[in-house]
Amino acid sequence: MKRLRDIGEDGLIERLLRGFSDEGLAVGPGDDCAVVDDGRGPLRLLKTDAIVERVHFEPDAVASRVGWKAAARVVSDFAAMGGRPERLLVTLAVDGARPVAWAEGLYRGIRRCLETCGGVLAGGETSSVPAGAPAVISVAGEGSVARGRVVLRSGGRPGDVLAVTGRLGGSIGGRHLRFMPRVEEGAWLAGHAGATAMMDLSDGLAKDLPRLAKASGCGFEVDPARLPRHRGCSVEQAIGDGEDYELLVAIPAKRWAAVAGAWGEAFPGLGLHAIGRLTSEGGELSGGWDHFTARRG
Amino acid sequence: MKRLRDIGEDGLIERLLRGFSDEGLAVGPGDDCAVVDDGRGPLRLLKTDAIVERVHFEPDAVASRVGWKAAARVVSDFAAMGGRPERLLVTLAVDGARPVAWAEGLYRGIRRCLETCGGVLAGGETSSVPAGAPAVISVAGEGSVARGRVVLRSGGRPGDVLAVTGRLGGSIGGRHLRFMPRVEEGAWLAGHAGATAMMDLSDGLAKDLPRLAKASGCGFEVDPARLPRHRGCSVEQAIGDGEDYELLVAIPAKRWAAVAGAWGEAFPGLGLHAIGRLTSEGGELSGGWDHFTARRG
Repeated sequence: MKRLRDIGEDGLIERLLRGFSDEGLAVGPGDDCAVVDDGRGPLRLLKTDAIVERVHFEPDAVASRVGWKAAARVVSDFAAMGGRPERLLVTLAVDGARPVAWAEGLYRGIRRCLETCGGVLAGGETSSVPAGAPAVISVAGEGSVARGRVVLRSGGRPGDVLAVTGRLGGSIGGRHLRFMPRVEEGAWLAGHAGATAMMDLSDGLAKDLPRLAKASGCGFEVDPARLPRHRGCSVEQAIGDGEDYELLVAIPAKRWAAVAGAWGEAFPGLGLHAIGRLTSEGGELSGGWDHFTARRG
Repeated sequence: MKRLRDIGEDGLIERLLRGFSDEGLAVGPGDDCAVVDDGRGPLRLLKTDAIVERVHFEPDAVASRVGWKAAARVVSDFAAMGGRPERLLVTLAVDGARPVAWAEGLYRGIRRCLETCGGVLAGGETSSVPAGAPAVISVAGEGSVARGRVVLRSGGRPGDVLAVTGRLGGSIGGRHLRFMPRVEEGAWLAGHAGATAMMDLSDGLAKDLPRLAKASGCGFEVDPARLPRHRGCSVEQAIGDGEDYELLVAIPAKRWAAVAGAWGEAFPGLGLHAIGRLTSEGGELSGGWDHFTARRG
């Protein structure tokens, strides 16, 4: 009998989506968000995500940081399309023995994320889980992006410069609970920089870059020496740790110099580093997180 | 230290929503769905929900039925506002040891629900859970309802007739996995019947009716002898079992006779039974499901 850990996350998603129609969607399953075009006004972005105790956070993590992470992951997906958050819905599934103060702290973190990044809480649900089972926080939401400004994973072309915002690696030390979604940066890259493809780095560059390249019908080259790393992190960590929530973006080569110059003025203190380029084929990176094989492969 | 089971589900939700703004929402947290008014076109309904293994379904349940239930619960919430499903997003959090066939069966059930009730799958996520932890399926979605046709929980008035669709009680015997969301019925009640308040019965009449009455600023009276019960169910079961997913609706008394007559023509084979009325104050029912106190109280 084949189990989920035998086929991995991408294999599962591919199977689950067989036979589904994406009728009525400008962009269906497979990108950071689904895109809905109502024929007028901005495009709408739809996203759902969940974090699980002992997978995405430890039981002793500060509750408000857990809430921040749950909301910020979804916000980061809007940012990865060039968009902004509008409305979030939260489902909290948790043991009845959990302190009330924990749930209140969680929501404090969600609220702080919305105050920081924009958007409102539109609703939620609560459910129990069996005694001792891990808590699950699911966040769904709606974002928006101006028509013509949406950036998919699939628009990259051979020769485009690949760049990442900020630095990579070592998120497990605590950054995975307090990262800042790159909302302004994503909108800028979509608007001023002519980004052809973009996504956020959640499972690590080694898992995520091949996804972007594949969606664009390209290969890729990365120069490991050029990877912007957090202090104390190895190249392997920068490639494979995951949960960086930085943006990976493809920029036409002829625009790169101008973009890199303008970036420094727009976002002082945050790097935008070229790490390689899209090619017509090939490319390999090992590492990254797969939920079901639970190995960095 | 106060725990969630000490304050119960409604107590928790009340605390969590303190301090949240519902700016930009026609209806914020607290109804079956949030309502977004874009100023033109139909109103949009937003909802998120989750089902948890060993709480909402047993490990040996048929996977396609679990998928049906996960999707149909959200569809039922759209129906409870008079609306229809448009797009669903699914997050599956599950142990990597789970058979691939189980996940495929789950999605088959989701797909069947969408084919039956309308709407498309817009996206999803997968996550692992720690080994042995229960699976969680979170479904979020967007529905729509014609402007002026939305029915909230809060519009009921003293004297309105309270009615329920179908029959109540005994869902645990299997109906909780294969119920039919009352989409056409909800739209009809919202449109032709002049419903003033409506909700779906998920936690049992004893829990849900007081919520509707409270939202409407009313009390209520119920005649237990008039409750439409499934074969073999006691009045206590009809009041307290929950997971009926029938509609509870308030109809102005002067319209009731005409509505009851027209219903039989519109929905032959499905009952619409008057069970009592909204009053200016008072009313009590005991029973119903609370997730955190985990007692029928």
